[in-house]
Amino acid sequence: MYEGVVGDLIDELGRLPGIGPKSAQRIAFHLLGSDPADVARLAEVLLSAKDKVGFCGTCFNVAEEETCRICRDASRDGAILCVVEEPKDVVAIERTQEFRGRYHVLGGAISPINGVGPDDLRIRELMARLSGSAVNEVILATDPNLEGEATAAFLSRLIVPLGVRVSRLASGLPVGGDLEYADEVTLGRALHGRRAVDD
Amino acid sequence: MYEGVVGDLIDELGRLPGIGPKSAQRIAFHLLGSDPADVARLAEVLLSAKDKVGFCGTCFNVAEEETCRICRDASRDGAILCVVEEPKDVVAIERTQEFRGRYHVLGGAISPINGVGPDDLRIRELMARLSGSAVNEVILATDPNLEGEATAAFLSRLIVPLGVRVSRLASGLPVGGDLEYADEVTLGRALHGRRAVDD
Repeated sequence: MYEGVVGDLIDELGRLPGIGPKSAQRIAFHLLGSDPADVARLAEVLLSAKDKVGFCGTCFNVAEEETCRICRDASRDGAILCVVEEPKDVVAIERTQEFRGRYHVLGGAISPINGVGPDDLRIRELMARLSGSAVNEVILATDPNLEGEATAAFLSRLIVPLGVRVSRLASGLPVGGDLEYADEVTLGRALHGRRAVDD
Repeated sequence: MYEGVVGDLIDELGRLPGIGPKSAQRIAFHLLGSDPADVARLAEVLLSAKDKVGFCGTCFNVAEEETCRICRDASRDGAILCVVEEPKDVVAIERTQEFRGRYHVLGGAISPINGVGPDDLRIRELMARLSGSAVNEVILATDPNLEGEATAAFLSRLIVPLGVRVSRLASGLPVGGDLEYADEVTLGRALHGRRAVDD
């Protein structure tokens, strides 16, 4: 429906995750109507991000240098390793300010339906990190869904024999949530994982 | 929370309309993980769209040349002019394949609350087009909302004295919709605009 380069722009925008044809059109016309300097800055940051940002050689988090900020930080506790699926999970955990250990980013979760097997994740690299290291606890912080649970189960079978403590994030009711609206699996887990109240 | 250029990328994406912080993050990580050629193509099309695409000198639709495809098309009926708010409205009407006249894009609607007055729209240019032209009908196809209705009312007061027929798009029930779910204003309009059935 759109001629030439407007059509190309809408097509390219529509390829981004979560952007449908209507949003792509809306963004395209917004960009066409906005300051050329703003559009140039967006284009530039796209290219420079792609150019500069790679993966940390140790934990596979996103990094602008050889190793990421967290791996470079000598004050972090090397005895505890948190295994997550994606770099954005690192950010989510960092935001809690409750974790001072180090990370390992798998790059996804085991999902046979999407053709993702253990060899497609950085599991070999994780095992290499653990062998002969000072790590004494691994927190499996994969997503609490089918793929994440399967990945955690797979990893725990590999890691437990190394004599490393393996833990999983608690499942339960979200803080600020309503018990009434919790699904039965979550509520079941919350009951199962109930904690003694000691004041 | 994000360092350096990843943070910049998320910030820039988050400035786009309809893209919240979570979507921006999702798109950013998608881009970081995708083929460099794809990202380069997106950046390139952004710049070239901004560079090449301007507004038609006649109707103010988006155009890659001095005048747009529709204004250049000699087979279009110059006697009927459809006035719309935005270039995307031209596309919506073209998609119906029911209109063979020409367009005039206002560039918005009168909205005092957003500081948009008649002088901010291409109303002067519309009146210049109408004066001494062969146009004998103007369809006011502004949005059926408060701003669109106000703009249509304003324009009709200007255009009717020129002896040009002025019409407005019909309001009523959307085709395929449920009467039960129609709001009372729409249903009222549908009743008011009811048409005789003649077979």
